[in-house]
Amino acid sequence: MLKTGNMLRSANSPQYFKMMKMMPKWSRSSSVCVKSEPEEPRITTSIPGPKTQQLLKQLSKLQQAGSVQLFADYDKCVGNYFVDADGNVFLDAFTQISSLPLGYNHPKLMDAFDDKHYLKQLINRPALGVFPSSKWPEMLNNILMAVAPPGLKCVSTMMCGSCSNENAFKSVFIWYRTKERGGKIDFTPEEMNSCLINQPPGSPHLSILSFKTGFHGRTLGALSTTRSKAIHKLDCPAFEWPCASFPKYKYPLNEHERENCEEDQKCLSQVEDIIHKQKQCNPVAGVIVEPIQAEGGDNEGSPEFFQCLQKICKKNGVALIIDEVQTGCGPTGKMWCHEHFNLPSPPDIVTFSKKMLSGGFYFNESFMPPQPYRIFNTWMGDPGKLILLEKVIKVMNEENLICNTKHTGNHLKKGLLELEKELPNVISSVRGRGTFLAFDAPTAEARDKINIDLKKNGVLSGACGVKAIRIRPALIFQKKHADIYLDILRKTLKKL
Amino acid sequence: MLKTGNMLRSANSPQYFKMMKMMPKWSRSSSVCVKSEPEEPRITTSIPGPKTQQLLKQLSKLQQAGSVQLFADYDKCVGNYFVDADGNVFLDAFTQISSLPLGYNHPKLMDAFDDKHYLKQLINRPALGVFPSSKWPEMLNNILMAVAPPGLKCVSTMMCGSCSNENAFKSVFIWYRTKERGGKIDFTPEEMNSCLINQPPGSPHLSILSFKTGFHGRTLGALSTTRSKAIHKLDCPAFEWPCASFPKYKYPLNEHERENCEEDQKCLSQVEDIIHKQKQCNPVAGVIVEPIQAEGGDNEGSPEFFQCLQKICKKNGVALIIDEVQTGCGPTGKMWCHEHFNLPSPPDIVTFSKKMLSGGFYFNESFMPPQPYRIFNTWMGDPGKLILLEKVIKVMNEENLICNTKHTGNHLKKGLLELEKELPNVISSVRGRGTFLAFDAPTAEARDKINIDLKKNGVLSGACGVKAIRIRPALIFQKKHADIYLDILRKTLKKL
Repeated sequence: MLKTGNMLRSANSPQYFKMMKMMPKWSRSSSVCVKSEPEEPRITTSIPGPKTQQLLKQLSKLQQAGSVQLFADYDKCVGNYFVDADGNVFLDAFTQISSLPLGYNHPKLMDAFDDKHYLKQLINRPALGVFPSSKWPEMLNNILMAVAPPGLKCVSTMMCGSCSNENAFKSVFIWYRTKERGGKIDFTPEEMNSCLINQPPGSPHLSILSFKTGFHGRTLGALSTTRSKAIHKLDCPAFEWPCASFPKYKYPLNEHERENCEEDQKCLSQVEDIIHKQKQCNPVAGVIVEPIQAEGGDNEGSPEFFQCLQKICKKNGVALIIDEVQTGCGPTGKMWCHEHFNLPSPPDIVTFSKKMLSGGFYFNESFMPPQPYRIFNTWMGDPGKLILLEKVIKVMNEENLICNTKHTGNHLKKGLLELEKELPNVISSVRGRGTFLAFDAPTAEARDKINIDLKKNGVLSGACGVKAIRIRPALIFQKKHADIYLDILRKTLKKL
Repeated sequence: MLKTGNMLRSANSPQYFKMMKMMPKWSRSSSVCVKSEPEEPRITTSIPGPKTQQLLKQLSKLQQAGSVQLFADYDKCVGNYFVDADGNVFLDAFTQISSLPLGYNHPKLMDAFDDKHYLKQLINRPALGVFPSSKWPEMLNNILMAVAPPGLKCVSTMMCGSCSNENAFKSVFIWYRTKERGGKIDFTPEEMNSCLINQPPGSPHLSILSFKTGFHGRTLGALSTTRSKAIHKLDCPAFEWPCASFPKYKYPLNEHERENCEEDQKCLSQVEDIIHKQKQCNPVAGVIVEPIQAEGGDNEGSPEFFQCLQKICKKNGVALIIDEVQTGCGPTGKMWCHEHFNLPSPPDIVTFSKKMLSGGFYFNESFMPPQPYRIFNTWMGDPGKLILLEKVIKVMNEENLICNTKHTGNHLKKGLLELEKELPNVISSVRGRGTFLAFDAPTAEARDKINIDLKKNGVLSGACGVKAIRIRPALIFQKKHADIYLDILRKTLKKL
């Protein structure tokens, strides 16, 4: 089994980066997978091509398939390159909504189940809360805890990002009510009876505060904290939970320090006001926040914003949940994006999914429920995904992928900033960390056209927020891929 | 690819059963997997054994592990036999909370990813709503639609039972509000704005009616319809959604027909009353119900109850969701339990998970949302699970497993009824369909003791409701396993 925590930690350390700077650049980019990639994108049909259109008709008979962009030939995809049903080859800077850490068909993942022991973990999927494998504690320790956010000692696996957030909320509510009981673990008969008819005190009026334009998932609890787009929420009942403004910065950051600092303060005082107002009728038990709001437009918050947010939470006895579903597992140049913030103490809960392959959440031990069966479901995650994640972490170490992401990101951001200077009417507000980057188009319509044209020119990118393009490559995205991305983006923007 | 719908259908037909009756019994039970099983359980340590206790200590440092019963050695488990970390061998009549269709380490599942094409579907897990494989429409058609509940033409895959129900609710709310708009697909600015702050009209006051002692999952929306046990719900905010009584029958059914029929009527008139009362402030958009309430105590509803429930729903423009998460995929002697009810038309939505290996829901096409991105998330299920399900369905056909379940179930139920006569003070209300069977102990304490003693004697069974033991074997559970179960149960009950 794998012991990687210290290596990854040290890969984030100043000493490590100093050492890396002294090494020739090529030594940082030796991904096995990248070597068998095509040289560049190759588009040979209209987009979507005829086979894709045919498949879309078939799928639309079975389900609402209006969100489907392309059908993939996963046998042919490799590394950073996506191959569609019509044989078109795309450079993938969106990677399944940011959920592929090592790109396509990485040989180390292809081998993951060669050992029958691992295959048996996959096909005998247990009810992890009742009959886990005898290897399970070791797997949690050696895989998930090896890359845990500093200071968090506990972890629960889950199925996906939404259910990770839902269970984080439940952990917070249980923690909050247990505090209110003075730590007593008994329930009153009134609580026991009222909860079965969804009434207080058993089902209390408590809330989770989230931020405008934030995204935290789509099941009804998670959806009540999601505020990014109306189409996600329309027609669905929601808890009457409050939301505060999230900072909207002016770019470049170093030219607008004073305004952006005021923006932080405005948002933070809203948070404080809401927490105080809610105390009367629907107290805020927890705050959930993304380190960079992704779906909502790649909106950044400063380290100072997050430090003050944590201070407000602590002062008011409110839990702080950092949603790292999209930012986690390396893309920002650190394992966890909130490590950029130098928080004086760890967040209470950090949720993950996507590149981590398994959903789940890390938590401070005071958020462990006093009774079993409260954070529970049949599967509680999937050991098969942890087996793949173990390989991913091993490759991340062997190939210095967090370091690679930092360097590639710097190069890519530099190129985007140059493009911004070159075409200031078309691209603005270049922002982000690592390869987790974005820029704004002038309008929503222009953004949609850019995204479609990029695809026609052989690049998959993502849209987010009102008028942003987000870049979400795999951790094996290198300088040469960034250059191809920038070339095709330049060509696309110039023809707009 | 596989075409199994008709075969499975015909395996449920009267003609098929007539044919099966004329065949010698042994020809029905030739599971490859069963042949390599041990002859019987073998317990060699205290339960839990020393290694299990040691592992529990390790796991408890990382998470609330109070629900863990045993740690498994999945390398050694086979067929209907579970082997724990201490080398004890149990006959498994609980099968990971009813989620293993073919028992442990079935050779056909061990081979499932030998073909690299399938392995690539597994490791390149796509965002199915955006970039599905070119094989995906075919997989949905040939695997999921081949075993679809009669009359339902559409399907969405999901991650687990809870998110299947959550997305079924969302589909119902979208359908209900679209009806209210007269089918128009535009939203008002007021709807668009209000939903982002969780207020009507965008986030409407609409409800899902569920039944007392029902269980539908644990994320906050699903949990609002779950009513089985307080410990699942305590401290979690819930939607103010209504619940009606579910029939509680007297057994044996044929001796209490009049009373049980009155019980049906009492519950149905509650449903009708609630739907009428809710119309003023929080209309019922949908009803969710299990064909047999599992977690809540294995409570059955009669075919007449379900027929009338559907009639009430149709009369009131309310959607009917049948939650087959635990009953689906064969254990009741039909592919879907609601097929026992001879409903005049299909239910609107049928949700599944567990033995189906993938979560998801079948639906009538009028529940397809008019816009994309409304029933959506990053993964939308997992193709790797469908590849396994394809093998499961193939084995179910080749080995006549639904038929086997019906026959084994009849034998097991007969044995339980004999035990009930023999020990009327200890076991009562034997009930269920197929091998989906249960009985009551005199008290909750006696039930818990029986369940623990069964384990000490080498049998894994499940508890449910207040004082019930539920039996949830795999579909490869045969007469000889039922006999072992009955022998050990008799021994256990006699020593109580």
